[in-house]
Amino acid sequence: MLLKNEIAQQPDVISRLLDESEAATELVAAAIREFNPVFVCIAARGTSDHAAIYAQYLLGAVLRMPVMLATPSLHTVYGRSPDFSKALVIGISQSGKAEDVRAVLNDARVQGGLTLAITNYDDSALAQSAAYHLPLLAEEEFSVAATKTYTAQLTVIAMLASALADDEEMRSDLMNLPQLARETLDLSEGIADWAGRYRAMDRLSVLGRGFNYATACEISLKVKELTYIASEGYSEADFRHGPIAVVQAGYPVILVAPQGRAFATMRDISNRVKEKGAETLLISDDEDMLGEATGAMRVPSAPEWLSPIIAVMPGQVFAMRQALARGYEVDKPRGLSKVTITE
Amino acid sequence: MLLKNEIAQQPDVISRLLDESEAATELVAAAIREFNPVFVCIAARGTSDHAAIYAQYLLGAVLRMPVMLATPSLHTVYGRSPDFSKALVIGISQSGKAEDVRAVLNDARVQGGLTLAITNYDDSALAQSAAYHLPLLAEEEFSVAATKTYTAQLTVIAMLASALADDEEMRSDLMNLPQLARETLDLSEGIADWAGRYRAMDRLSVLGRGFNYATACEISLKVKELTYIASEGYSEADFRHGPIAVVQAGYPVILVAPQGRAFATMRDISNRVKEKGAETLLISDDEDMLGEATGAMRVPSAPEWLSPIIAVMPGQVFAMRQALARGYEVDKPRGLSKVTITE
Repeated sequence: MLLKNEIAQQPDVISRLLDESEAATELVAAAIREFNPVFVCIAARGTSDHAAIYAQYLLGAVLRMPVMLATPSLHTVYGRSPDFSKALVIGISQSGKAEDVRAVLNDARVQGGLTLAITNYDDSALAQSAAYHLPLLAEEEFSVAATKTYTAQLTVIAMLASALADDEEMRSDLMNLPQLARETLDLSEGIADWAGRYRAMDRLSVLGRGFNYATACEISLKVKELTYIASEGYSEADFRHGPIAVVQAGYPVILVAPQGRAFATMRDISNRVKEKGAETLLISDDEDMLGEATGAMRVPSAPEWLSPIIAVMPGQVFAMRQALARGYEVDKPRGLSKVTITE
Repeated sequence: MLLKNEIAQQPDVISRLLDESEAATELVAAAIREFNPVFVCIAARGTSDHAAIYAQYLLGAVLRMPVMLATPSLHTVYGRSPDFSKALVIGISQSGKAEDVRAVLNDARVQGGLTLAITNYDDSALAQSAAYHLPLLAEEEFSVAATKTYTAQLTVIAMLASALADDEEMRSDLMNLPQLARETLDLSEGIADWAGRYRAMDRLSVLGRGFNYATACEISLKVKELTYIASEGYSEADFRHGPIAVVQAGYPVILVAPQGRAFATMRDISNRVKEKGAETLLISDDEDMLGEATGAMRVPSAPEWLSPIIAVMPGQVFAMRQALARGYEVDKPRGLSKVTITE
């Protein structure tokens, strides 16, 4: 099973990035410091867009950089690029073949913006068209559902934030990441024991906040791609503004709630949906909350800024186990291709 | 029925804004021109966030302004505001009571950014804390599901874009809006004849692109708030990157596809989901496409930049008719309050 292998490879990919990409990352950080962008724009689609959301929070929290997510149709449908002359514009694409992402970077380059591509292939069109490229070093990903390239994207972004912050504590946090990833995957093996209980589940909400809003979106997409159920990822705050109306007895909610600054608000929404009778599937390192959850997905404690890189892993395993429990093809879901090109 | 009345009031609210808000809008536009922001940040939640998405596309397409959507948790959970000293920061909230939106504006004001609130109440906390305020003039909205305040928010944004562009054609387009809104509501009456066919529907995707990506998000939220089904709004491009896996025979898809530059790509995704057996519910002014749709929601032809203001209306009516067909309370859906305050 390709997907299972690729999930298992994640600690090694992260380790490789930390070992081999430091110099390239420092070079890009130096170029960004020199350019001194007023804001950042990130163009990405699908899973890569969730890496963009992580970058939005991380660069905002650590470096106070305002980060916008691109609106590619302005470039490709309306032929009107916003003014990116004072911006760092980052394109994220596993394959590097995303045409609309490349259009955003091309427009930015012509305007004098600083461009950076993050892809898995040095010779990809996106990598070639940007001023700088940071590779994912994830080797080829065969499974349609992206896993190792997602955590590689997050790791590249985390390394870049650390280099820009020039912060020793962040560097030392990063060094622990491969070990934390290994522990997470070991802890996730138990999910197989109970995931089958949810094989009749036909809808799901996945909630996170702050750094782990991206994790909620990505886990939701994994479950949807692999099981075709109606899963939706939300910021717990947005969820309260309307979508919470869907919760009733037995409704399943995955909560991404590792300890950290966003933890209190996640505990609060957990109580709120439990009052409405929801079944809570919890990704956390908080023993009290884990003890109260219907499904416990334990992760090791980690610095909050790095927690999205490990907190997504039990979600990947849960999504895969759901597909297996339903007898679905996990490596090639119906109607999807590995590379989707949109304009 | 409050909701039905408020949907019906929309042409009058739009008309009132055009009649009474021009001077205030010109004043704000002058202040923005003088400040000359490098980028725009918009903070909003729920329905108001969809107005923010409309602004993102409109200000980008018309004025080439880069527009980011705020990440309120950076301000409220992490206590780290991005640098907004060169930004126009807009807060959108029907009630003006959104605490997290106010936190974003407060941080921006302290940093020297230009702040603008768009709310329905001159004396709201948000209006009071911003340098400028543009009111919605929508009178009180009683129904929990926002309708007239949403189209009022879009109208305020459209008027602001027109004032900033100082464009006669845009001004004259705006003057036709009340009449277009009236025609749209007249055309939407027929939805009652067939909406009941979908009363057993338990999930739904709503697709748009470009200017009408916001419309897809908003219609999806209306259906979810009023019927509790798993409805999801997508850019048709994002939908192709994974979520399309959910479509199979009989799966309902609402397509927001008025004529304009995004029309071709919407026609293409319509064909794609029809090949997979989807039922297409179409909001459009294209007679050929309407003839082929399972459910036709006709709108009058309008300039594309204003089409979101009318294209949402059949979606509002469809959502209300779904709730009625299911015997649900339409003015006060379960588990929701009119004002949701998140931090």
